[in-house]
Amino acid sequence: MKLTILGSSASTPKINKYTTSQLLKIKNHHILIDCGEGIQMQLRKLKINFLKINHIFISHLHGDHYFGLIGLISTFRLLGRTNDLNIYAPKGLQEIINMQLKLSSSWLNYKILFNNLESKSQETIVKNLDFSVKTIPLRHRIYTNGFLFEEIYKEKNIIKSKIEEYKLNIDDIKGIKEGNDFVDRDGRKISNSIFTKQPRRSKKYAFCSDTAYEPKIVQSISLVDCLYHESTFLNSHKDLAKKTKHSTASDASKIANAAHVGRLILGHFSNRYRNLEEFLIEAKTHFENVELAIEGTEFDI
Amino acid sequence: MKLTILGSSASTPKINKYTTSQLLKIKNHHILIDCGEGIQMQLRKLKINFLKINHIFISHLHGDHYFGLIGLISTFRLLGRTNDLNIYAPKGLQEIINMQLKLSSSWLNYKILFNNLESKSQETIVKNLDFSVKTIPLRHRIYTNGFLFEEIYKEKNIIKSKIEEYKLNIDDIKGIKEGNDFVDRDGRKISNSIFTKQPRRSKKYAFCSDTAYEPKIVQSISLVDCLYHESTFLNSHKDLAKKTKHSTASDASKIANAAHVGRLILGHFSNRYRNLEEFLIEAKTHFENVELAIEGTEFDI
Repeated sequence: MKLTILGSSASTPKINKYTTSQLLKIKNHHILIDCGEGIQMQLRKLKINFLKINHIFISHLHGDHYFGLIGLISTFRLLGRTNDLNIYAPKGLQEIINMQLKLSSSWLNYKILFNNLESKSQETIVKNLDFSVKTIPLRHRIYTNGFLFEEIYKEKNIIKSKIEEYKLNIDDIKGIKEGNDFVDRDGRKISNSIFTKQPRRSKKYAFCSDTAYEPKIVQSISLVDCLYHESTFLNSHKDLAKKTKHSTASDASKIANAAHVGRLILGHFSNRYRNLEEFLIEAKTHFENVELAIEGTEFDI
Repeated sequence: MKLTILGSSASTPKINKYTTSQLLKIKNHHILIDCGEGIQMQLRKLKINFLKINHIFISHLHGDHYFGLIGLISTFRLLGRTNDLNIYAPKGLQEIINMQLKLSSSWLNYKILFNNLESKSQETIVKNLDFSVKTIPLRHRIYTNGFLFEEIYKEKNIIKSKIEEYKLNIDDIKGIKEGNDFVDRDGRKISNSIFTKQPRRSKKYAFCSDTAYEPKIVQSISLVDCLYHESTFLNSHKDLAKKTKHSTASDASKIANAAHVGRLILGHFSNRYRNLEEFLIEAKTHFENVELAIEGTEFDI
């Protein structure tokens, strides 16, 4: 997986500072997570192929997480998109998008498949051959989900030297990767385990924005390779965090520590802070492997 | 009047290229005309005081003319706005904005006064002490208005030397500016015309985007000091202009010539053109005083 930060400011875009949006690449899939205003300009700047984006996940309906979506949908049309677009978002967004398309008499040449989220319990919302996605119910001022992405690697890895040794052809290799035993020219059955290593370990990425400090999520994000957790405030503004149902850097790192995640990325910074290094310093009191969601940064997961 | 171009690209924003939006200053009023995605970032870049904007005019409900509005409305709230905001836009926009505010549970600390436009005939939609605005019905794929802005200068200009000569006090001056005759200490009535020059000539600005070539508008924009007219295409794409109900540079300049306007500004350029100078060359075959709506440019009217 590769994660690119498109925007990480809270509440409102500023000059060259965009609000929450991330691009997650899993195998050949381009997945957009939240979509703040003007994100299509960021996608262009970072030279990301618009038409590869087939899945968009929206955490909640505060504007800094979705105001860029209708523009992107319109641009997809102008770019001649024909393949389906899957949108996973709180109930209500579909109506806004449809109304805007209707008022502009814009007919799309592609289908939008809306998956309207409204459950307050965790649910699996995607499961295909390459990845799965579960919601992570969060605690915010309005209905909000985080998302847990998991790669799926089912095929076993073949040990290369065995190909030559047993003169395996393409069909043999395919069967072995799927887990079958091998039958040689003389009809002898040779166990699959002779030829293969276990499948590659599937990595997990958890995206949690926006949320108050919510220890209940620890169970769903336990042991993920990478956790993005919002940290709108520093501890010096913890009262404000509580009031607005946001987290501090300290809150985020406590969650990361309790869930034994591999790495923590902080984001959704309030515009009041000039020096983001303070977020790192504060977080490190609870969790060492922490980084900042700076726009344009790419993380290998 | 001062006109600042915030964006002038057609259809979709690109890197540092915004779609149609202009800021018109009349006396102390800041007036926003159309509001493409990300325009709040342009307003910041150009150091324009957000909270001075009390009037927003939206020509039509294609996204490149209004997708930035909901973000701006939200940012107004975050900035602590309390004064009323007047929005003049085609019927339908109010419903979109209200639905978005409702879904995000966002309560505004200020009132939005929607003026829902639906008439296909010209109408006066603003008339206050300082300026008036009339619609200019345009011909496009959906219901679209241009807008005709006119300064109002009612007060007569007093001839300064007369103040000393007749020992005028503040009340005398006020009465004379309002057009009253002057009565001196001995009860003699002296004609107003002795003291005054005619009021400053009121300037007019006409904004026409988006529209097919439409000679019918010539009458409403006759003799304006400045005309902004869209020119999405060059004449080499006139078939495309016809099909999409847009204008060419040649069309725009024919309108400017027929209406005897003072100056023509071209904009809403299709992203297909690299060299915008060609728009000037083409327009000048019909009208000499023509300029391009380049982002960030300020025009004195």
